[in-house]
Amino acid sequence: MKKVAIIGVGHTKFGVLENQDLMDLLCDASLEAINDSNTNDENFDSVYVGSMCPETFNHISGVANALVDRIGLLPAAADHIKNGPASGGSAIKAGFQAIASGINSMVLVVGGEKMTHITTPGLVTSAIATITHPKAERSHGASLPSLAGLLTRVYLEKYDAKLDWLSDISIKNHKNGASNPLAHFQRTIESFMESAIKKGKGSWNNIYEFLNDDKTNPIIADPLRLFHICSISDGAAALVLCNAELAKKYCENPVLITGIGQATDTQIVYERDDLTVLNALRESSNQAYKMAKKTPEDIDVAELHDAFEILEAVESEDIGFFKKGEGVRAAHEGLTEIGGKIPINPSGGLKARGHPLGATGVAQVVELFWQIRGEAGKRQVSDVNTGITCNFGGFGNNILSIIVEGM
Amino acid sequence: MKKVAIIGVGHTKFGVLENQDLMDLLCDASLEAINDSNTNDENFDSVYVGSMCPETFNHISGVANALVDRIGLLPAAADHIKNGPASGGSAIKAGFQAIASGINSMVLVVGGEKMTHITTPGLVTSAIATITHPKAERSHGASLPSLAGLLTRVYLEKYDAKLDWLSDISIKNHKNGASNPLAHFQRTIESFMESAIKKGKGSWNNIYEFLNDDKTNPIIADPLRLFHICSISDGAAALVLCNAELAKKYCENPVLITGIGQATDTQIVYERDDLTVLNALRESSNQAYKMAKKTPEDIDVAELHDAFEILEAVESEDIGFFKKGEGVRAAHEGLTEIGGKIPINPSGGLKARGHPLGATGVAQVVELFWQIRGEAGKRQVSDVNTGITCNFGGFGNNILSIIVEGM
Repeated sequence: MKKVAIIGVGHTKFGVLENQDLMDLLCDASLEAINDSNTNDENFDSVYVGSMCPETFNHISGVANALVDRIGLLPAAADHIKNGPASGGSAIKAGFQAIASGINSMVLVVGGEKMTHITTPGLVTSAIATITHPKAERSHGASLPSLAGLLTRVYLEKYDAKLDWLSDISIKNHKNGASNPLAHFQRTIESFMESAIKKGKGSWNNIYEFLNDDKTNPIIADPLRLFHICSISDGAAALVLCNAELAKKYCENPVLITGIGQATDTQIVYERDDLTVLNALRESSNQAYKMAKKTPEDIDVAELHDAFEILEAVESEDIGFFKKGEGVRAAHEGLTEIGGKIPINPSGGLKARGHPLGATGVAQVVELFWQIRGEAGKRQVSDVNTGITCNFGGFGNNILSIIVEGM
Repeated sequence: MKKVAIIGVGHTKFGVLENQDLMDLLCDASLEAINDSNTNDENFDSVYVGSMCPETFNHISGVANALVDRIGLLPAAADHIKNGPASGGSAIKAGFQAIASGINSMVLVVGGEKMTHITTPGLVTSAIATITHPKAERSHGASLPSLAGLLTRVYLEKYDAKLDWLSDISIKNHKNGASNPLAHFQRTIESFMESAIKKGKGSWNNIYEFLNDDKTNPIIADPLRLFHICSISDGAAALVLCNAELAKKYCENPVLITGIGQATDTQIVYERDDLTVLNALRESSNQAYKMAKKTPEDIDVAELHDAFEILEAVESEDIGFFKKGEGVRAAHEGLTEIGGKIPINPSGGLKARGHPLGATGVAQVVELFWQIRGEAGKRQVSDVNTGITCNFGGFGNNILSIIVEGM
């Protein structure tokens, strides 16, 4: 198996990007990655695009064809890889396998989504809900937010944790996002509170009072409130992958992808033995650790999939950082902050960086690339050599784990 | 690079399948392939699903998640691969690379589409048209049929060929389809004419008069008539792939995938130097021949992508069987019939077997598997050891070529 290196990355601003359509975003991230990797004069073998809903949101089904033409990479092979909100991670895996097999030596991977322009009421939610089970879940209103609310209730009761501790994850991720110039929300939750006070919307003694106020932080999927849930965003992120033997030709400090795992769980959530256990993450992270010959103790930083803040906590357990039931408490105790035992989501995560579905899995690896190279600015974690991601498809029924390391 | 074998196949009936939804079709083809490969007790590493429009046609976006759960293959990795009408071919390539890299040893690939249930006028056509360029083509009405009509006009004029010769391709494919018990149309065009005569719809002196009659064979996209164009169909097809070292454990006569190529061309058709040249096929087939160490002369049978009959002719040139401009004439002269110089589409092709978009690329390889094993019944080509496919995405802007051989 050939080793696979990342030699350049691209990452648009995430947020409400009114003047760019999906193709603009995919092109911007791609061209930035190509520039960053000094491969402007090279031939690319393949392009893999991860995007969840371009047909529904953007009326395009040939995203990969269109991209490879528009950025001048013809006749590179081009495929569109779909795995719900983990489409970006699956696109990376496809690119990884193309190089690992020896068939390709230079591959572009890009993930992106353009969502915020949609004005049809309910279209975004209903499109995303098409990954739940049509008869056992969707028809009963079991959307992803409602399933996350259910998981939160079960978790808090079973492990005697508090909703305010869960809010600590949101607080941390917004704090990290405030240091990420590409994040959708570059603001602490404290700054939202201060704005609300200035505008005379109320007064609160502390951040938890603010976060438990129905007016400022309404319940979306009981007990989850607005600040426990990521928003919709526009954005794209890209990686240039190459056969590691060639990597030093293009850049001084390439980063290696040393482990990739992917696993599935029951599509219907109620069929799982324990709602609080992500079997697919246990399996996928085990595959990744095994391939990379690493253990959770070797990981210096992690980018996890906090579409709902409960997920970051549960994932931090099933990926091996904390015992089952201790993830929310660990976040509350500050163990997952930058400078803590295992920093999680220094980028701001899905909560603050934003979650343009197909972009997320790629953006997670971009963040680890910057962390490993010491290029993460104010949110830099110290002494990073190895990082891991969790990219979460469906409601935990199709999860990828990717381990990257300095070369 | 590990060698990759096909050890079992599945193929539903293609046609108007009223009592089966998309998941039923994908499950049926998958379970048939698993049974056929004697892998019922094995663990699968990955499942790749090729399907073009399940979101629009079937309101499902997690087809791969749903399939892997429903047929009991958890926790196998599962991804949905999209490349328009070449989604099946791209899914095979993804599975091939998973095994060739050594990361996986047992993979299920399935392609399928469920289309005929759609009653919303224009929905099928508009969904398929989302692979054309939104501004340069789609908004001007340049749908796939209209582009095929344009190509046909240019071709017939440039190479002094006749529309009746093009009809010979339809006649051949319907004749072949009449011997394929899984084909959508198991009827010769002659039998359609005989029925029309019996019903008093007219009388014709020969098949060409019938095919040039506006009442019985109306013009769809001038000069292409109904019988020059494939219909919409429901169906699915599947392959079980494994590391070739293990293949003989499961079956006596595995078939090897020895070459895979994929290449792109300009998304906008008018930007090509010559409308009658499929650059993406020249490139992808060259890649496949090179990987397999074969030339066009080594090919015993081919399954080409005749969504429009002109495509079979043009593809038969750019894949290396005939000189440019001689493909239509070669078909007219019988060179592509079973028993001819190079039999094309013994299955009946997209015209008669049917074209359930994502299923087609997989069904092509299933047909070659049967041809190589001598299991193709009345449509068996003699002495087949090596076959090639052309699976055509977009309007020739993303093409796969796959070479398979007896082991």
